Amino acid sequence: MAIDLTTRSDVVKYHFLSITRPSSAFLTRIAAIVLSGWLCIVSGQKPAIGDEGMWLFSNLPIELLKQRHSFEPTAEWTDQLMRSSVRFNSGGSGSFVSSNGLVLTNQHVGSDTLQKLSTAENDLVTRGYVAMTLEEELPAPDLELNQLISITCMTERVNNAIKMGMTAADAAAARRAVIADIETEFNQQTGNRCNVITMYGGGQYHLYEYKVFTDVRLVWAPEHAVAQFGGDADNFEYPRYCLDACLFRVYEGDKPAVIGNFLKWSVNGPAETELVFVSGNPGNTSRIFTSAAIRYERDFRIPDVLNFVRRREILLQQYSLNGPEQKRQASDELVGFQNARKAYSGMLAGLQNPEYLAELEKREQEMREQLAADPALAELSVAWDEIESVQHRRAELGKRSFTLNTRLYWFAQTLTRMAEEDRKPNNERLPEFRDSNRESLLQRLLSTAAVYHDLERVKLADMIGRTLEIRGGDDALCQQMLDGKIPSYRADTLVCQTRLMDRDFRKQLVDGGSNSIDASDDPLLVFARVLNGEQRLLRLADEELDEREIQAYSKISRALFALRGTSIYPDATFTLRLAFGVVSGYEEGGLAIPAWTTMDGAFEHEAKHNGNEPWQLPESWHESGQKIPGNTPLNFICTADIIGGNSGSPVVNKNLELVGIIFDGNLQSLTGDFYYSEHQARAIGVHSEAIRQALSTIYAAPSLADQLGK
Amino acid sequence: MAIDLTTRSDVVKYHFLSITRPSSAFLTRIAAIVLSGWLCIVSGQKPAIGDEGMWLFSNLPIELLKQRHSFEPTAEWTDQLMRSSVRFNSGGSGSFVSSNGLVLTNQHVGSDTLQKLSTAENDLVTRGYVAMTLEEELPAPDLELNQLISITCMTERVNNAIKMGMTAADAAAARRAVIADIETEFNQQTGNRCNVITMYGGGQYHLYEYKVFTDVRLVWAPEHAVAQFGGDADNFEYPRYCLDACLFRVYEGDKPAVIGNFLKWSVNGPAETELVFVSGNPGNTSRIFTSAAIRYERDFRIPDVLNFVRRREILLQQYSLNGPEQKRQASDELVGFQNARKAYSGMLAGLQNPEYLAELEKREQEMREQLAADPALAELSVAWDEIESVQHRRAELGKRSFTLNTRLYWFAQTLTRMAEEDRKPNNERLPEFRDSNRESLLQRLLSTAAVYHDLERVKLADMIGRTLEIRGGDDALCQQMLDGKIPSYRADTLVCQTRLMDRDFRKQLVDGGSNSIDASDDPLLVFARVLNGEQRLLRLADEELDEREIQAYSKISRALFALRGTSIYPDATFTLRLAFGVVSGYEEGGLAIPAWTTMDGAFEHEAKHNGNEPWQLPESWHESGQKIPGNTPLNFICTADIIGGNSGSPVVNKNLELVGIIFDGNLQSLTGDFYYSEHQARAIGVHSEAIRQALSTIYAAPSLADQLGK
Repeated sequence: MAIDLTTRSDVVKYHFLSITRPSSAFLTRIAAIVLSGWLCIVSGQKPAIGDEGMWLFSNLPIELLKQRHSFEPTAEWTDQLMRSSVRFNSGGSGSFVSSNGLVLTNQHVGSDTLQKLSTAENDLVTRGYVAMTLEEELPAPDLELNQLISITCMTERVNNAIKMGMTAADAAAARRAVIADIETEFNQQTGNRCNVITMYGGGQYHLYEYKVFTDVRLVWAPEHAVAQFGGDADNFEYPRYCLDACLFRVYEGDKPAVIGNFLKWSVNGPAETELVFVSGNPGNTSRIFTSAAIRYERDFRIPDVLNFVRRREILLQQYSLNGPEQKRQASDELVGFQNARKAYSGMLAGLQNPEYLAELEKREQEMREQLAADPALAELSVAWDEIESVQHRRAELGKRSFTLNTRLYWFAQTLTRMAEEDRKPNNERLPEFRDSNRESLLQRLLSTAAVYHDLERVKLADMIGRTLEIRGGDDALCQQMLDGKIPSYRADTLVCQTRLMDRDFRKQLVDGGSNSIDASDDPLLVFARVLNGEQRLLRLADEELDEREIQAYSKISRALFALRGTSIYPDATFTLRLAFGVVSGYEEGGLAIPAWTTMDGAFEHEAKHNGNEPWQLPESWHESGQKIPGNTPLNFICTADIIGGNSGSPVVNKNLELVGIIFDGNLQSLTGDFYYSEHQARAIGVHSEAIRQALSTIYAAPSLADQLGK
Repeated sequence: MAIDLTTRSDVVKYHFLSITRPSSAFLTRIAAIVLSGWLCIVSGQKPAIGDEGMWLFSNLPIELLKQRHSFEPTAEWTDQLMRSSVRFNSGGSGSFVSSNGLVLTNQHVGSDTLQKLSTAENDLVTRGYVAMTLEEELPAPDLELNQLISITCMTERVNNAIKMGMTAADAAAARRAVIADIETEFNQQTGNRCNVITMYGGGQYHLYEYKVFTDVRLVWAPEHAVAQFGGDADNFEYPRYCLDACLFRVYEGDKPAVIGNFLKWSVNGPAETELVFVSGNPGNTSRIFTSAAIRYERDFRIPDVLNFVRRREILLQQYSLNGPEQKRQASDELVGFQNARKAYSGMLAGLQNPEYLAELEKREQEMREQLAADPALAELSVAWDEIESVQHRRAELGKRSFTLNTRLYWFAQTLTRMAEEDRKPNNERLPEFRDSNRESLLQRLLSTAAVYHDLERVKLADMIGRTLEIRGGDDALCQQMLDGKIPSYRADTLVCQTRLMDRDFRKQLVDGGSNSIDASDDPLLVFARVLNGEQRLLRLADEELDEREIQAYSKISRALFALRGTSIYPDATFTLRLAFGVVSGYEEGGLAIPAWTTMDGAFEHEAKHNGNEPWQLPESWHESGQKIPGNTPLNFICTADIIGGNSGSPVVNKNLELVGIIFDGNLQSLTGDFYYSEHQARAIGVHSEAIRQALSTIYAAPSLADQLGK
């Protein structure tokens, strides 16, 4: 199956959980999770228990919070938290933490921008950065932040557009059109970005109104070595000792934006057993999945993803062997792929547990029996069969599906499609070409970030080779791709001859519109045109399957609402959600794992590994780290239900004071795509006080620290 | 498809070409090879041109050598070289270099033994080793060396056993039986190991008589850092600077064996343009392959192998992160997989060249037309269709085929099969259980080499997980494998509970015979028994396809003999072959690449990379390396036709003096499995003088150096 880890929506899914750790312990731990944890699972098919849930801000579990934690959020409380939360369109979360536009997130969320701002001479990923004045704040080349302003239900209007007896393709087109119309209408009305989001797998449609910030500047980032202390080996581990935080600032009219809703700063941070809230944008979960969909994940999609991830990981490692500059160019992407490999390995292990699937099937069976017993609901039961049939078709489609996504090819493909789509009325276009998304699209297409020639070359060669492996070397389209040459030669030629590396050239094509793009004989555009027909067919085939699933899952959602009540949360969709939980350690292998770690612990952890990479704290920490009291908490854990995309999410207490930010989950949380457990699964955060003190003392920026929460 | 890189016959294929290099240059170079080099290719379907050929010692290209190099080998010359050559059953080549049993090979061929002789405290791979006295020579735990004594043609006798109208399965059984009978008969007659080898893809059968040495002791090995200087990055590169050599000694009756046939030592080494000979055991080539077989390699087998290789490479990297001892345990295997990845990537790039396949098809077409024109040969043409049909079946079989090969599982599976096979008459057994192979089998089964518990655990878990991915998680056999648990838990349990780690326990089972093995309730034996039925079915299905191919390729061989004459060489079969060529540089990217490198060059290469790993020469070289004249040649290249398995092969001049040993091929040689080119493809050797001087000066063992060639 074609896996596209390079588009934004996909990156979200993989970018949160940061790096990797040793296989043997990893596998043993995964065994422990899956064998001990899954019995308390709750799929979308049961009401949430414990601290499970990624709740909609428009449908918070008020009763549950009252009963379980004696807390009742008010409308003001909810609105304040919602508007203080920030989405990073590059794939992560954050929050406003000052009235003058400071945004706090993880260093690993900011690292895409750090990489793009770096050069061979000045590597901000490795060295970190502090702007001592506003003038020193560095504009990000293509970063976009979103602030959620309002949520409105549009289910009826969307559903009314779908008529009985429509084919899946027609229904998908009708749905796309009505969604585009709604978005345009509300965009004109509010002046803000408006997106219709499919919730409950198609059970509901909500309009999300976002204020968009595109002038975002880097303020502070610590060194990679301490942000991701322990690297690949410690990733998904706990106890952890990472200062995985950084600061941006949003600007309007070339001045720091004036922000009305921001979080106050907690000096003490969270106490053990304290109730905390996580407000962020979990990327994607699959908790509503039927057993047939789970089988497809287990036997097809995840194994394919893992093959691709390992392939790219090795490619990037090999590229890095060329020298320090190549290593720098590849490092951010490499970390992402290492992280993805570890996350998917954990997921797959969870799905390969025969008891998990047996339990899921049992519950499905029970539910279908309940439905059959009620004449008003009986027809909903076909949904499970429909979803099974879609999975078979997906497996078939996987034999032809391919992607070539490198940055240069993405430019070529996007421009080629833009030429086609822009000739259509707005509401008939593919979503990314709609007016409502144009600003984001252009920001990415016209990004000033460097494109690395050699890296593009080896990636494109590998992707062409992989396409031959998927479709077979005799495939007519593959033959056209090769043009008589081998993949690497073809890629070399295309990358050397295209002008798409040049932003001005891209701008010229965009400004010239459809005719100008179509008339270009740039070799990579010509190449993209050759592939465009088949790629469009595959995309439409895929969307038709999505539509069939949407219709089926909307039936399952109706069944759930009918049988289990409406206080359920939908699967994550990279939109703002509220999770809650308590700060709490856990027991593992007879050991009590503490709820937090300290500054002293970081130095001890370094010493334990003899300071070998990746356990080498940066110079700044050796110079000034000990000035911070050793017992200052550094990282902490809580039971909140989080997933990839939640990286950088603020953790707040009842008083809406920021007590920390999420940066990872532990190994036991890796099955979270499919089910939640609070037995040992934990979200891991950076403590607010560690951030404030480090900023003030280690990074010598007390004036920045003073702005926090004010 | 199931890939078994851990059995001996397979390792041969992958073990020669040592480590890896950067993707970008790699791909560019591969492009250059495939685009410039392939036009002078010669598949099995044309007579050899240039210095192509891995010739049988029983059918040397006397005329070609006379014409091309004005040299005519005598029978004595041939016999002396044959008997001076040594096969390492672990997957490599070597030669006798003294009358008192010294055997010279590559460090990377010996590294399997070095690893097995190492402990956490004393890592011989890293540190190297020198035995200053016979007493210090270290017995290898399970190394077997073979010396070829004679070759006898058995084609008629084998073919007579196959009757018209037999099914493929019956024919395979009949062939196996007659081969076993011949082997037993000649073994009894000579007292030596006798193996019948299928040559020319089934066109001929030859009896190879080997003297076997099982008491083999380590004498000298340099440090890994200089043996594989430049590591993964420099692998398959040239110019190179590796002292990839080590010495063993064979013993008989606990004394150094007295060796009648050994090579003299050349002080001057090879001169530019000098004719040299390589006598070694190339593992496997596929030059007779039809276009249908090439398509199967390109679209199925090699992509599958690469997915597996990358998977294992990442697993071993992750395991190594656990600490220095884990890194040591995994290092030898990791190097092997890195090497395989690079080798297969090069092969695949070659096969993905559309012009190569077009040319092959054109030649096939011509040949089939020639056959059709001759009534006596016309029937041979069906062979191509038959081979195509076999490929489709192989692709089908690949959806069920799996292997679990870890060392512990290999013990369990082998014992389980031994119990079954030993109940059959010798000539009906699977080949590895025949009397003629029993000594090798027991040496491996009862090896004293350490088995690493944690490494076995993660490998078994991964192989079980992979089997689920191949066959689907619902597969009944997979469910039996899991026994209700996830792969890692199941593997943990099996590895923790089995007693097969214990050599005495294995010996007890072997000594107790079939009944004792069958009666054992060791969990891993029970597990192997569960899988045995299906694994046997898959193996038989595979062998039936092999048989169909043998019959088809034997027809193609007959066609070749009829149309092209009998002076052709068969594909490599890990049996002794003679290659020849001249010492010669080449041109690349406008640069003249020299025919050899020097000692000084090694230090310059280190300096160029700032002495960063893997470009850090060992301490011994920094202390004493400069005592050797700087212009002493270190590595050299020649045009001889070599492939994996040739590692350690002696390179000799016309006077049978050893001028060096093969240790690698350059990038341009990577397509050698399928075709030879002398445009830029080169075999890389260590120079004889570098070995002698290093031994004497850097490793302070002049008395060993004095034994060389005497």
